[in-house]
Amino acid sequence: MRRKRKVLRLNQEPDNAIPSFGRYRNLKNPLVKQNSLSEEKLAEVHDAALKVLKDLGIKVLNDEARKYYRKAGAKVCETTLMVKLERDLVEKSLKSAPNLFTLYGAVAEKDVILGGNNLVFCPVMGPPFVSDIDSGKRVATLKDTENFIKLSEYFDIIHVQSTNVEPQDIPTNERHLKVTESQLLLSQKPVCIYSRGQQQVQDAFEMIRISRGLGKKEFQEKAWCYTSINTNSPRQLDIPMCQGIIDFAKERQMIIITPFTLAGAMAPVTLSGALMLQHAEALAGIVLAQIVGPGTPVVYGSFTSNVHMKSGAPVFGTPEFVNAALGAGQLARLVDLPWRGSAATTSNAPDGQSIYETYMSSWGTILGGANFMMHSAGWLEGGLTGSLEKFIIDIEMLQMFAEIFRWHESGDTDIAFDAIADVEPGGHFFGCQHTLDRYKNAFYEPLISDWNNFGTWTEQGSKTVTVRANEKWKQILREFQPPKIDDAINDNLKEFVARRIREGGAPPVS
Amino acid sequence: MRRKRKVLRLNQEPDNAIPSFGRYRNLKNPLVKQNSLSEEKLAEVHDAALKVLKDLGIKVLNDEARKYYRKAGAKVCETTLMVKLERDLVEKSLKSAPNLFTLYGAVAEKDVILGGNNLVFCPVMGPPFVSDIDSGKRVATLKDTENFIKLSEYFDIIHVQSTNVEPQDIPTNERHLKVTESQLLLSQKPVCIYSRGQQQVQDAFEMIRISRGLGKKEFQEKAWCYTSINTNSPRQLDIPMCQGIIDFAKERQMIIITPFTLAGAMAPVTLSGALMLQHAEALAGIVLAQIVGPGTPVVYGSFTSNVHMKSGAPVFGTPEFVNAALGAGQLARLVDLPWRGSAATTSNAPDGQSIYETYMSSWGTILGGANFMMHSAGWLEGGLTGSLEKFIIDIEMLQMFAEIFRWHESGDTDIAFDAIADVEPGGHFFGCQHTLDRYKNAFYEPLISDWNNFGTWTEQGSKTVTVRANEKWKQILREFQPPKIDDAINDNLKEFVARRIREGGAPPVS
Repeated sequence: MRRKRKVLRLNQEPDNAIPSFGRYRNLKNPLVKQNSLSEEKLAEVHDAALKVLKDLGIKVLNDEARKYYRKAGAKVCETTLMVKLERDLVEKSLKSAPNLFTLYGAVAEKDVILGGNNLVFCPVMGPPFVSDIDSGKRVATLKDTENFIKLSEYFDIIHVQSTNVEPQDIPTNERHLKVTESQLLLSQKPVCIYSRGQQQVQDAFEMIRISRGLGKKEFQEKAWCYTSINTNSPRQLDIPMCQGIIDFAKERQMIIITPFTLAGAMAPVTLSGALMLQHAEALAGIVLAQIVGPGTPVVYGSFTSNVHMKSGAPVFGTPEFVNAALGAGQLARLVDLPWRGSAATTSNAPDGQSIYETYMSSWGTILGGANFMMHSAGWLEGGLTGSLEKFIIDIEMLQMFAEIFRWHESGDTDIAFDAIADVEPGGHFFGCQHTLDRYKNAFYEPLISDWNNFGTWTEQGSKTVTVRANEKWKQILREFQPPKIDDAINDNLKEFVARRIREGGAPPVS
Repeated sequence: MRRKRKVLRLNQEPDNAIPSFGRYRNLKNPLVKQNSLSEEKLAEVHDAALKVLKDLGIKVLNDEARKYYRKAGAKVCETTLMVKLERDLVEKSLKSAPNLFTLYGAVAEKDVILGGNNLVFCPVMGPPFVSDIDSGKRVATLKDTENFIKLSEYFDIIHVQSTNVEPQDIPTNERHLKVTESQLLLSQKPVCIYSRGQQQVQDAFEMIRISRGLGKKEFQEKAWCYTSINTNSPRQLDIPMCQGIIDFAKERQMIIITPFTLAGAMAPVTLSGALMLQHAEALAGIVLAQIVGPGTPVVYGSFTSNVHMKSGAPVFGTPEFVNAALGAGQLARLVDLPWRGSAATTSNAPDGQSIYETYMSSWGTILGGANFMMHSAGWLEGGLTGSLEKFIIDIEMLQMFAEIFRWHESGDTDIAFDAIADVEPGGHFFGCQHTLDRYKNAFYEPLISDWNNFGTWTEQGSKTVTVRANEKWKQILREFQPPKIDDAINDNLKEFVARRIREGGAPPVS
C-alpha cells in the first residue's frame, strides 16, 4: 500500500531554474470567488448599513469633515457630532469613485492596477516592534524600517511599499519625513504615507513631487501614493483619519478606508452584524472622500475578525476571519470598488501557528477576490511586531499563490500522448525529449523550502524553515543595491527633509 | 494609521466554550469548486486517457487480473502482459460504480458517506518512521501505530482509521493481523486494510466479520473497510495491487485507486499530461474492480505532484500540486465518482514549511471538492515519517476548515441592527445583550493556538505551537479510553490473531 519511491536523477542540473524576477508583476487572480453570504443576506446587509447611516448616523470628530458632509446635504448635529447620510448621497458617491485605477511608482514597470481581478501584495504595516531570531523582539528603529523597505523592493511579488514598522528612534514630528524619504530613496515602488495631520501629509506630498519630478497639477492627475484610514468602530471617524481622507481626496491620491470591526468587541458578535457595521463605516468614509474630491481613488477596506471570548483579545486567521473576508469581498463587489483584505496572525512567534493563521487569512482574502492584500509579508503578534523571518516565509507563500494563478493563465497544457507512448510501462520520463524540452521552467523553484532528503538535511544542520529564512533576509540585505536615483533629486529630497527638520517637522495630530 | 487596540475583558468567562465533540461528524464542503482545466481541456484529457487505454494499453502483472480483463472483452497479450480497453468497457464500468455510498464503522455515528459534497478526513498512511520532538525520528513500532489509532479515534474531525505508520517490530507475515486488531480494539471508526496478498486480505476480512458480528453474506452487503491501491506509473498494475482490487471487489469492499503520477518522473512533465496518465491508470483499476464485482464502491484517487528537477525527488504541497488537485477533482466529477485527494508536505521537520505545504495541498484538495482527504493529519517528510506533533497541528487546521464550512450551513446570520443602535459611537459590544446571548458558541475555540499576549506567552515559556502540540498528544494518550468492546468479541478476535500467528501468518506478496 505504501507507494514505492523511485529516486531518479537528472543527467544535467537545471541552471538554477526559473528566474523569478519580473514573473510576479501585474498579478491577476483567476480563481472563482467564494461567497459566505447568500444573495439575499448580502442585499440585507447592504440595506441595513444604509439604514444605519440614515437613521443612526456616524460620529465625526473633525470639524472640517462635518462641514463637507453638511454642504453635500447630510444631516449634521453640532452638539452630538453625529452625521446622518441619505441613501442618495451614498449612491452618488459610489458612482463617482473609480472601480479600476493605477497607482504609480517611479518607473512604469512598478505601477500597479487596483480593481478587476488584479491583485496587489503589500507588506506589513504598523508594528511598533521588530523581531528576528538572533535578537528577539525589540523596539523598531529607522534601520529596521529601511530593512523592510529593502526587502519589499527586492521581491517582485511585493508590489507596493508600506510604512512597515514604526521607527521609534525618530521623533514623531520627523518620522513622516524620514519614512517617506527612505521609501523614495530605496525603492521605485508606489509609496505609502501616514495620515497623521495635514502638515505631515503636505510634507510627504511635496517629497513625492520632488522625487517623481512633478508639478502640483501633474501630481493631482494621478495616484502617486496611498494611505490607510481606520475608523474608530463602532460608528466613529476621528480627527486625523477624517483629515487624512480630506487631504488625500483634495489631491486625488489613493485612500484605503478600513473599519476595524472586531466581532464581539467593537462590532456585533455575529459575522453578519460585524460586516454590516463594517460596511456602514466604510461607506461613510468613502462618501467623505467623494464629497471632497469626486473621482478620488478609494479602496473598500475590511479587517473584520473576532475576539477571543476568554480574554477579549483580537484574533486573526480564524475560521471567522475567513468567512468575514469572503463576505467583505462580496460587499466590495456589490458597491463595485477595489477591495483590500489582509494576511494576519495572532501568533507571538514565527512558528507553525503564525503560518497556519496567515494561510487561513490569505486564502480567505484571495478566494474573496481581494485586489490589495495588506500585511502580506512580515506581520506577527496581531500586528504588534514585524518579523524578518516571517517576511521571507510569507514571500514563499505569495510566490506559490502567483504560480497557482500563472498556470491558469499560461500553463503548458500539452497532453503528452506521444511522450506516454514513448515511455514503457513502469519506466520513467526523465530522459524523454518531452521532459528535456521543458524541465527548466516546468515547476516553481522555491525560495526557502528545503526539499533535500532527511540525511542531507541533517548533514546540513537540520535547519528549520525559520533558520533558513533568517539566512535569506541577511543575504538579501547584505547584497541589496538601491535603485539609481538622479543626483539632483537625491540632493533636493535630502535638503527638503533637512530643512523641514530644522523648522521643527510636524507633530502628529490626534 | 496603526489601529488602536482596545483591551476588553468579559465579566464572566465562557465555560470552556464550544464542545467540539460531535461537531465535526458528517462534514459537507459548501465551497464553490475551483477548476484548473478549461472545459475543452478536461474533455481532451478524458478522451486522450481513453485512447491510451485503447491504443497503448496497461501492463498488468497479475495473471488472474488479465483473465478478468480478457473475459470482459479487453484485448490481452500474454507475451507483453499488455491489456487494452475499449471505450465501451470503460463506460460500462463507470456506470456500475456507485457515486455515493456509506462506509460503515462499529456504530452508526461513526459511519461515513463518500460522494456528493461529503468530506472525510483520513490520517497519515504508510510511513515506516515516526517522530516526535522528544526523541526525533525512529523506526515505527506497534506502539506507535496504536498511538496514531488512539489519536485518530479521539478526534471527531478524523473520520476513518488508516494503517498509519508501519510497525516494523512486527514481522511482515503478522503485521496485517496486529494492525487490523489494533484498529478494531481501539477504535469504532471504519478500518483500513493492507492489500498485500490474498491471504492477508482474507484474514483481515474475517477479523472485521468477528468484530462487527457479521456473517459472510452480511459482510458483502455493505462496505466495512477500505484499502488503498497505487498503480506503478506509468501504465502498470503490479501483482499485489491487482490482487487487492480483485479481493476487495469480490466482497464489495471499498477500494481507493490512486496512480502516483509524479510530473517529470513517472508521468509527463506537463500537468495536463500527468493528469491524463493518472486518469488512464485510475480508470484501468476501476474497470478491473467493476468487472470482478459490479457495484463495488470505488474512489477515484489522485496523487499527482511534481519532482524537484534538481534532484528528481518527489515534492508535495507545491503550486503544481494544487493545480493538479483542482484538475483531478474535475476528472473525478466528470466520471461521477467520489474523489480522494491528499494533504502532503516534503518538509523534514514539523516546522513552518511543513505547515505551508500542508495548507497548500489541503486547500487545493478541498477547493477541488475532495470527498476523502488522505494523510490529513501527521504526514511528514514526503510520507516517510508520521509526526505526532504534526498530527495535532493538522487537527487544528482540519477543525478550522470544518468551522469555515459550518458557518455557510448554519451560521448565526443576525444582522444586529438593534445592537448597533444600542452601542454608542466609539463604545463596545461586550456587555450588550446581543453579545451575552451568543458569546459562548459564537467562535471557534482552538485546540493549540496560543492567543495570549506576548508577555503572558513569554511567562508561560515562549512555547511554539510544536511544543504545545507535543504536550497535547501526550495528554490525549495518557487519558485515552478505548471504546467498550464486548468481551466475547474481544476474546474471539484475540484468539483468531493468536491462531493465525501460530499458523505462520501470511507473508506479503510482491
